[in-house]
Amino acid sequence: MRVVVPFGGDSPKTRLAPFLDADERRDFALAMLRDVLDTVEAAGGNPVVLADAPVEVDEQRSSAHQTMSGDVDVPVIVDDRPLTEAVNDQLGGDDPIAIVMADLALVTEAALTRLFETAGDVVAAPGLGGGTNALVVRTPDFRVDYHGASIADHRAIAADVGASFVEVDSMRLAVDIDESDDLVEVLLHSEGRAGEWVEAAGVELDTDGGRVTAIRRRR
Amino acid sequence: MRVVVPFGGDSPKTRLAPFLDADERRDFALAMLRDVLDTVEAAGGNPVVLADAPVEVDEQRSSAHQTMSGDVDVPVIVDDRPLTEAVNDQLGGDDPIAIVMADLALVTEAALTRLFETAGDVVAAPGLGGGTNALVVRTPDFRVDYHGASIADHRAIAADVGASFVEVDSMRLAVDIDESDDLVEVLLHSEGRAGEWVEAAGVELDTDGGRVTAIRRRR
Repeated sequence: MRVVVPFGGDSPKTRLAPFLDADERRDFALAMLRDVLDTVEAAGGNPVVLADAPVEVDEQRSSAHQTMSGDVDVPVIVDDRPLTEAVNDQLGGDDPIAIVMADLALVTEAALTRLFETAGDVVAAPGLGGGTNALVVRTPDFRVDYHGASIADHRAIAADVGASFVEVDSMRLAVDIDESDDLVEVLLHSEGRAGEWVEAAGVELDTDGGRVTAIRRRR
Repeated sequence: MRVVVPFGGDSPKTRLAPFLDADERRDFALAMLRDVLDTVEAAGGNPVVLADAPVEVDEQRSSAHQTMSGDVDVPVIVDDRPLTEAVNDQLGGDDPIAIVMADLALVTEAALTRLFETAGDVVAAPGLGGGTNALVVRTPDFRVDYHGASIADHRAIAADVGASFVEVDSMRLAVDIDESDDLVEVLLHSEGRAGEWVEAAGVELDTDGGRVTAIRRRR
């Protein structure tokens, strides 16, 4: 299955600004993107990056990945329109297609396999805060709308076109990484480059207070 | 399987204070507890409430539930020690036992069934922020420690006693309701009393900004 991975490469992850400077945010966003691309391939998908600016995804992919699937380039489509328009331009064909966000740092092969194998005209993995972090679309009539509480909008859009809508219950697909608190999840649950990158950047768990938080002791 | 549901009935959900007053927080906490108890029973478990103060759980349980299983009282054990000690006092027996938190407002029968049916000496559903929202324990040697990033501690404790440790990947078990932002998830995903309670209290989604938030327009 073709798996479109939207990537905001222009100024990624601005809400991590208190923690990471602009170059670091870009590096970290690329680490997450590469984790997602490898995991899509491991789950049997054919990834395509849909970026709002040119991006070089292949230079640092893992040796494990290269051993597994050779040195295959992942195609990059550059489309600088807003996310919803760019994704809708990819929909409407007869073949099933998936949309998987690039900042799912906790993604696992098992979670994506479950997403890809769940039956339904539209299969969605809700994100925290009302988002739709991953979709499989098996009908040409469905369109996305990522503004606002998109999971509720996507339920309604599917109903409007008479398509079944099935949700996949996954924490690893629900957590996208936008804010410093989300780095707690990366430190605890990432199995890829994203976790390594955050640790190397000096970000650590702080368990002293009532809540677990992420802190950065050194730069 | 015996399913222990710890409930902080003394002054529940204090971090919801900006949104809900003390009586409301208690009502809402009871609505979530009742959803969890019904869902445990639907998934084939035998729930027991482990409370730090006396609590009346049965008066408002659903008629659907009463039709299904009769007017069965859920036993309440009152233990005013800290959570970790009170739960550990329930462990150590030869029969499998589960621990499911009372504030999992998004819980579904499917998610709990998956938890209960996953093989492993210790099966855990991680919570956001490093918590351990649900556990199945099939070895008498395991003990809990809910302080700090408990999911990491529980992995280590299982390894120390030579027990296998398996994680269940579920958003519906990962989200516990502590803060006003969490009410977004209740409004979007609850299938029980908790969602009805929050709507009746006048809490609504606000999708005007970049993030979806919960607001309370009326009291």
